[in-house]
Amino acid sequence: MVNLVIVGSVALDTVQTPFRIVKNVLGGSAVFSSVAASYFSKPGIVAVVGEDFPQEHVDFLKNRNVNLEGLEAEGKTFRWEGSYEYDMNEAHTKKTELNSFENFNPKLPKSYKKAKYVFLGNINPELQLRVLDQIKDPKLVMLDSMKLWIETKKKELLKVIKKIDVLLLNDGEARMLFDTPNLVKAGSEALKLGLECFIIKKGEHGVLLFSKEGFFAASGYPLENLKDPTGCGDSFAGGLIGYLESTQDISEKNIRKAIIYGSVIASFNAEDYSLNRLKTVALQDIQNRYTEFKKMGEF
Amino acid sequence: MVNLVIVGSVALDTVQTPFRIVKNVLGGSAVFSSVAASYFSKPGIVAVVGEDFPQEHVDFLKNRNVNLEGLEAEGKTFRWEGSYEYDMNEAHTKKTELNSFENFNPKLPKSYKKAKYVFLGNINPELQLRVLDQIKDPKLVMLDSMKLWIETKKKELLKVIKKIDVLLLNDGEARMLFDTPNLVKAGSEALKLGLECFIIKKGEHGVLLFSKEGFFAASGYPLENLKDPTGCGDSFAGGLIGYLESTQDISEKNIRKAIIYGSVIASFNAEDYSLNRLKTVALQDIQNRYTEFKKMGEF
Repeated sequence: MVNLVIVGSVALDTVQTPFRIVKNVLGGSAVFSSVAASYFSKPGIVAVVGEDFPQEHVDFLKNRNVNLEGLEAEGKTFRWEGSYEYDMNEAHTKKTELNSFENFNPKLPKSYKKAKYVFLGNINPELQLRVLDQIKDPKLVMLDSMKLWIETKKKELLKVIKKIDVLLLNDGEARMLFDTPNLVKAGSEALKLGLECFIIKKGEHGVLLFSKEGFFAASGYPLENLKDPTGCGDSFAGGLIGYLESTQDISEKNIRKAIIYGSVIASFNAEDYSLNRLKTVALQDIQNRYTEFKKMGEF
Repeated sequence: MVNLVIVGSVALDTVQTPFRIVKNVLGGSAVFSSVAASYFSKPGIVAVVGEDFPQEHVDFLKNRNVNLEGLEAEGKTFRWEGSYEYDMNEAHTKKTELNSFENFNPKLPKSYKKAKYVFLGNINPELQLRVLDQIKDPKLVMLDSMKLWIETKKKELLKVIKKIDVLLLNDGEARMLFDTPNLVKAGSEALKLGLECFIIKKGEHGVLLFSKEGFFAASGYPLENLKDPTGCGDSFAGGLIGYLESTQDISEKNIRKAIIYGSVIASFNAEDYSLNRLKTVALQDIQNRYTEFKKMGEF
């Protein structure tokens, strides 16, 4: 039985940074988040790839204990092409080929339906809802989204948000969804929707957590060797929910810890292209950087 | 005898925010930083005003135990006019009237010359150097600057930086001075100049401290009621150095604490125009928010 379900994209990415370009490498929100979650948990993913999807990627995910029963194969794999400027703060999408994703109608395997932890990665909110409806009695549902859906499917997005526990957005998305430049105001507004937690990702500036129990601010990990931020938001989310699932503890106190674990994994992810860095990072490395995180905030 | 000398501007500010406009109100780097420092210490300021400078402001500073022996009066007071956009992240200077500041040649009173703590607020680096040269044997010298000087007086600025202990810049200035988008790289470069500490102010995103002993990251205090960020950088600096002077402890551990005290005072300062908020904030309020800061970072 799968206790953590992750829905999102499995993609072949072409990414240009100021340093180099990589073509058709493994990517997608479900991939980054499930690999991050796999340090703590055994996630099952819901996604679709094409028949052109390389077997080596399937093998890699299987080796990481990612359950692929919910991975369909049909047509051509989803492709994303993006680039980063000098400061690497924001991805600029150059091209998106939806391919097999276009008519994706997620159908959950039986073994997923009693999952207690669910991460609705950034896809069309209508699909997120369709996934959620198939899960019997989840304990914690976390959702990520993006500007595209806030602009084009706000009504549908708000409908799903009312059914979840934890909303995850980056600062730009938070400002847009709640129509304020002030993230603290956005935080109050989010809680009024009935959420348990609202988490705002600020990239190199860290993470904010708003909940009924108060406010938590985590710094970003200082990276001198930042190579490619693609997938950092998803690695963060996956690490976070994977840790929560493994500890079976969704108290605010434990969510703070989970946020740091997510931040640690995201910081490793940014040190190389695609999943390259996470391929070599061991749990002990994560523990060590977690300790560094603690020290760098002490006063 | 004055043990903390602060050089900078005393100004009449006209500030436009999305909420309102205030005209010819008390401002200037020496004012914000000395009032912030006065919670812990008895700073002496080095600055110039005009004969038009209102007596009530002089009285206010005196009441706050700010030593004004180093405050000259001549001609017309320096005026700054600026505005903030919707997100209030960056001040846009609309007009600067240097007035009496134009030919300011700082001459330190005798009682200032043995000061152990010096804050060289943001003015022409040649003037900063002239002030520093008049102080006999300082223990800790901190310097702030701005893009204008990095662009027009980089050589002079680097000359002063080599004589100081703590460099204070905001993130944009740090990126510009060290010619890198990466703040961690900027941190390493700064330490190569022989500095004890390099502190990067990131506004709502908090503060980074680089030193030989390691790295410290402080979050910003979450402000729902942000009215006017003018003077926040100077309030931060003043609170920081005032706390260091009062504790006579310049260890990295104590600098971390001083950074939080500075952040607390800056967060209060942003809650109203000019010095209005700091006029009503008591030391106990600062202690309370310091405790909140501690709690909001715990995991």
